[in-house]
Amino acid sequence: MKDRLKVVKIGGNVINDPGQLGSFLGHFAGMGGYRLLVHGGGRKATELASALGVETKMVGGRRITDDAGLEIVTMVYAGLLNKNLVAGLQARGCNAIGLTCADGNSIEAHRRTGAEIDYGFAGDVDKVDSVMITSLLRSGLTPVFCAITHDRKGQLLNTNADTVASELAKGLSDEFDVELIYCFEKDGVLEDRHDDDSVVEHMDLERYRQMKEQGLVAEGMLPKLDNCFSALEHGVGRVHIGKPGLLKDMNMKHTVLSL
Amino acid sequence: MKDRLKVVKIGGNVINDPGQLGSFLGHFAGMGGYRLLVHGGGRKATELASALGVETKMVGGRRITDDAGLEIVTMVYAGLLNKNLVAGLQARGCNAIGLTCADGNSIEAHRRTGAEIDYGFAGDVDKVDSVMITSLLRSGLTPVFCAITHDRKGQLLNTNADTVASELAKGLSDEFDVELIYCFEKDGVLEDRHDDDSVVEHMDLERYRQMKEQGLVAEGMLPKLDNCFSALEHGVGRVHIGKPGLLKDMNMKHTVLSL
Repeated sequence: MKDRLKVVKIGGNVINDPGQLGSFLGHFAGMGGYRLLVHGGGRKATELASALGVETKMVGGRRITDDAGLEIVTMVYAGLLNKNLVAGLQARGCNAIGLTCADGNSIEAHRRTGAEIDYGFAGDVDKVDSVMITSLLRSGLTPVFCAITHDRKGQLLNTNADTVASELAKGLSDEFDVELIYCFEKDGVLEDRHDDDSVVEHMDLERYRQMKEQGLVAEGMLPKLDNCFSALEHGVGRVHIGKPGLLKDMNMKHTVLSL
Repeated sequence: MKDRLKVVKIGGNVINDPGQLGSFLGHFAGMGGYRLLVHGGGRKATELASALGVETKMVGGRRITDDAGLEIVTMVYAGLLNKNLVAGLQARGCNAIGLTCADGNSIEAHRRTGAEIDYGFAGDVDKVDSVMITSLLRSGLTPVFCAITHDRKGQLLNTNADTVASELAKGLSDEFDVELIYCFEKDGVLEDRHDDDSVVEHMDLERYRQMKEQGLVAEGMLPKLDNCFSALEHGVGRVHIGKPGLLKDMNMKHTVLSL
């Protein structure tokens, strides 16, 4: 039987809120067993860009990463956020090691080309080095990844953090029985995006298709759910979406996904 | 017989110069055997501070690290510089993994107190986790450290990079036969700081004492040399100071230190 591994993603809104973040770090550090963390960006990159007079370009909720923008996300995601998460987990007894996907060549990517929109230094994932990451996990370390990848030709690239979490979960599912948990500020996927109580507790592919047809899935939720189903289709055992409290109590209300 | 390990430190002036940096990365990636890299800061942190209107306070060549300054060095050292070094080494076939000393609790430190000057969030080293770092090295990874440490209570700290290199070299000398190499923009320690050809090719403690008495050691060189001799006194086999080209050809002119 394979060992269990929890791949946890936290979004920017959790990082932005010191109360939510502290509570998340406590829950994450308190979980037993193998686990790894992937974190998003939060508003700090936008604030730094603004302070430096660098324009932040977004299309469809995705950042267009030019030279100056890549410097900023590398500083904020790989430096400030990643290392403060590591220090916070270390303080709670969790032996965290903070990485970009360039470190140890964890995830090799290529610059996205041929899309209608030029996303700049945006990376699409090619492959995950599951052997290296497994070796870190087995030696008692807890990897904390930000979503900066590289092309192995010296170029750093900005990648969607939900995608990085999904790719790591898939890549590690030969070695581990993987559970993928997306933590954000809501209790799960909402049937009515204006009603926080309308959590869809079980969502399969058919339900997802229906909700998309009815226009019930918010734009930002589409790529997240695509990543969830992609993970389930490629060996990941279970996928959950909900608040950070899930890490402490999997019985609290949230969305469970299945094929 | 122990395996050999080269602990290499590069200073800010090498990082600042794209030509020197590219050549350094080639030499470092081309070395065989176990090695790890420690890097300094360069002028980017000062530039970012200036762009953000944050005052950079220095006393005796050392940075006073307040809250805003700590954010800046964490972004620049742990993010921008560290990750671009990693990407550059990965492009040259070296499986680099970029770390602060908080990652994997590599180096535990405490905030400096009781000094005449309040250096702010400055960290003095307590201990090195040689087991964790050895495990990374043995699994084929090449650690690249910036000099951000932590107190294991959640606080990141700014530490002198020469000191981090010396402490890592000392900490790993039970496991490895360690050679410590400080690379900077000069051919070695100069007898006459205005004459680049006046390299002191061999320096022992007695010679160091004499040069200090005669006022021949530049202020910035004092802590570096103290770190060198401290390493030799604590198990490090050899210490060298010179240009990055040393990594390719140890016969080129440089300073060799002995007790």
